[in-house]
Amino acid sequence: MKMDQKPALLIIDMINDFNFTHGEILSQKTSTIMYSILNLKDYFYKKNWPVIYINDHYKLWKADLESLIQHCSNERSKHIIDKIAPRAEDYFLIKPKHSAFYGTALDTLLQELKVDVLVLTGIAGNICVLFTANDAYMREYSLYVPKDCTASNHDEDNIYALTMMKEVLKANIEPSKIIYDL
Amino acid sequence: MKMDQKPALLIIDMINDFNFTHGEILSQKTSTIMYSILNLKDYFYKKNWPVIYINDHYKLWKADLESLIQHCSNERSKHIIDKIAPRAEDYFLIKPKHSAFYGTALDTLLQELKVDVLVLTGIAGNICVLFTANDAYMREYSLYVPKDCTASNHDEDNIYALTMMKEVLKANIEPSKIIYDL
Amino acid sequence: MKMDQKPALLIIDMINDFNFTHGEILSQKTSTIMYSILNLKDYFYKKNWPVIYINDHYKLWKADLESLIQHCSNERSKHIIDKIAPRAEDYFLIKPKHSAFYGTALDTLLQELKVDVLVLTGIAGNICVLFTANDAYMREYSLYVPKDCTASNHDEDNIYALTMMKEVLKANIEPSKIIYDL
Amino acid sequence: MKMDQKPALLIIDMINDFNFTHGEILSQKTSTIMYSILNLKDYFYKKNWPVIYINDHYKLWKADLESLIQHCSNERSKHIIDKIAPRAEDYFLIKPKHSAFYGTALDTLLQELKVDVLVLTGIAGNICVLFTANDAYMREYSLYVPKDCTASNHDEDNIYALTMMKEVLKANIEPSKIIYDL
Repeated sequence: MKMDQKPALLIIDMINDFNFTHGEILSQKTSTIMYSILNLKDYFYKKNWPVIYINDHYKLWKADLESLIQHCSNERSKHIIDKIAPRAEDYFLIKPKHSAFYGTALDTLLQELKVDVLVLTGIAGNICVLFTANDAYMREYSLYVPKDCTASNHDEDNIYALTMMKEVLKANIEPSKIIYDL
Repeated sequence: MKMDQKPALLIIDMINDFNFTHGEILSQKTSTIMYSILNLKDYFYKKNWPVIYINDHYKLWKADLESLIQHCSNERSKHIIDKIAPRAEDYFLIKPKHSAFYGTALDTLLQELKVDVLVLTGIAGNICVLFTANDAYMREYSLYVPKDCTASNHDEDNIYALTMMKEVLKANIEPSKIIYDL
Repeated sequence: MKMDQKPALLIIDMINDFNFTHGEILSQKTSTIMYSILNLKDYFYKKNWPVIYINDHYKLWKADLESLIQHCSNERSKHIIDKIAPRAEDYFLIKPKHSAFYGTALDTLLQELKVDVLVLTGIAGNICVLFTANDAYMREYSLYVPKDCTASNHDEDNIYALTMMKEVLKANIEPSKIIYDL
Repeated sequence: MKMDQKPALLIIDMINDFNFTHGEILSQKTSTIMYSILNLKDYFYKKNWPVIYINDHYKLWKADLESLIQHCSNERSKHIIDKIAPRAEDYFLIKPKHSAFYGTALDTLLQELKVDVLVLTGIAGNICVLFTANDAYMREYSLYVPKDCTASNHDEDNIYALTMMKEVLKANIEPSKIIYDL
């Protein structure tokens, strides 16, 4: 990252009900990556950089964090949500589709915050994270997608998505410890 | 409205803190139009048509109805918010700028609901309602902007905005009772 | 304009067939404002600032300047098109609807050019220029809409649109000579 | 395809200068897939379904087919452009970035044409075709991406992109002959 750049941490779809095929497996993988994401959050707080949650709205069509958490909480998700739910000072947006940019105020928020570097984390790596990365690249954001902060139903799909983001989108996909030198 | 069309009621920026120049005047005018909007809401419930709130987020950048209501509640607004706050079954979206379509999931929601007619209500008539009407027109929605359901700081601006919506956007600006025949 | 700002000149819908109600009147008014716009163009060339045409595509749905000019040329328009048609070095985009930002690459182009101030010119002042101004304002561009560089079918609508842009969008609507001091 | 659906053929970035790493290889592969695309074009003409070119603008920022063809014509591309250049009756749009939907009028055109099924063809399969497919999926279009009508620098990337479109986006990726039964 260059001296005059400003990053934001994006946390994608971590308020999740895991209510889909392979949901249980993804929930387990998410339990693992969660700690790397939480460490990144702490680092972003320390640096006074923005932390932005952007999350599926589960057909509630409701900009209402409370209803969303209630809807998503279950056996597969509760231990994750308890740890990762946004704090009062975090930004929190809902998205209607896969990309965090489609039908959301994300780009407006990032411009207001003068952010030009995105650190993408969350699930699933080969769907919502990848769609978001593509859209970020078209909008000229520099990208970090730390490989220990994203997971997909199948590991090979996660690896392939990471490889695509590296090669097509020039994303840095090194593990999150690289962020601590930014 | 044609037989095969489906309307949605849009309620724009009615969760408002009225914390701006002429805010007190607009709050008084809003107290008046509120009843026409509430009647429309009841009618839309009866017809099983969607009711969609779309509201400024007051720089909270937070899809969180509770924080928004808390932020906006004050002497000028409380009696309005108490009456018009969304119920559990209403859709509720936040918008980052003036138009209800800019940086929001509104168009995606309307397409999912198969809505092609919009009834626009709320404040201010010559700003957020007008911007929304323009954007709706470019997206080919038919428009009703009942003149008893919108208000602006200055009455003449409200009238001029209504006239523009009628002439440029082909909006029907008759009082809301016309809606009850749809 | 601040020292570090960069303007672009937008020329809206001046390749026009004037084939609509009041088209002949608007063609006459356009013949008048054309000279102020051409002078601005020369000044922008001198300063090495970008000149961007953005034009209705007349349902041709074709990114093809030649077909567009051919389609629009007629008794009412030919003397205007002859004078104002884009040169090789001008940017030229088509738009599907009223606003120059809706369904176009304009915002991407402006970001690439690092433009943050827009000088809006062209027709009609109360429709395409106004819609464009609204959209520019939501995207945080500073606005100049020189009152001698825009026209509408009815003069009073033009004046009202200018007033709205001044009051709601903080646009500078002084005559174009003010631009020469930027 | 269901009885009441209407498809459009999208031809992506086939007016290409192949002026990039591996450009010569991609030019050769494109010479091969070109014939399947041309056959599809003929079939779409016969059925009276729309054919839409959407093409990179090569930093010309100019909605001008003639300049684009001139810019792209060279030893690697001329034999392709000669065969596949759009005819007068084809739609032709330029795009500023990878996805055919980003900063373009494509969605507006498709809605006007009442199209709900897209047949995606062109290059590169793992970049512009994939980005376009993702964006089409979020906008709820049904997708065909015939595997003999798309190519990428590396065959394995093309296959992986096709697999992703099949699995994540529910695209039909059978060879183009399946289209002739639509």
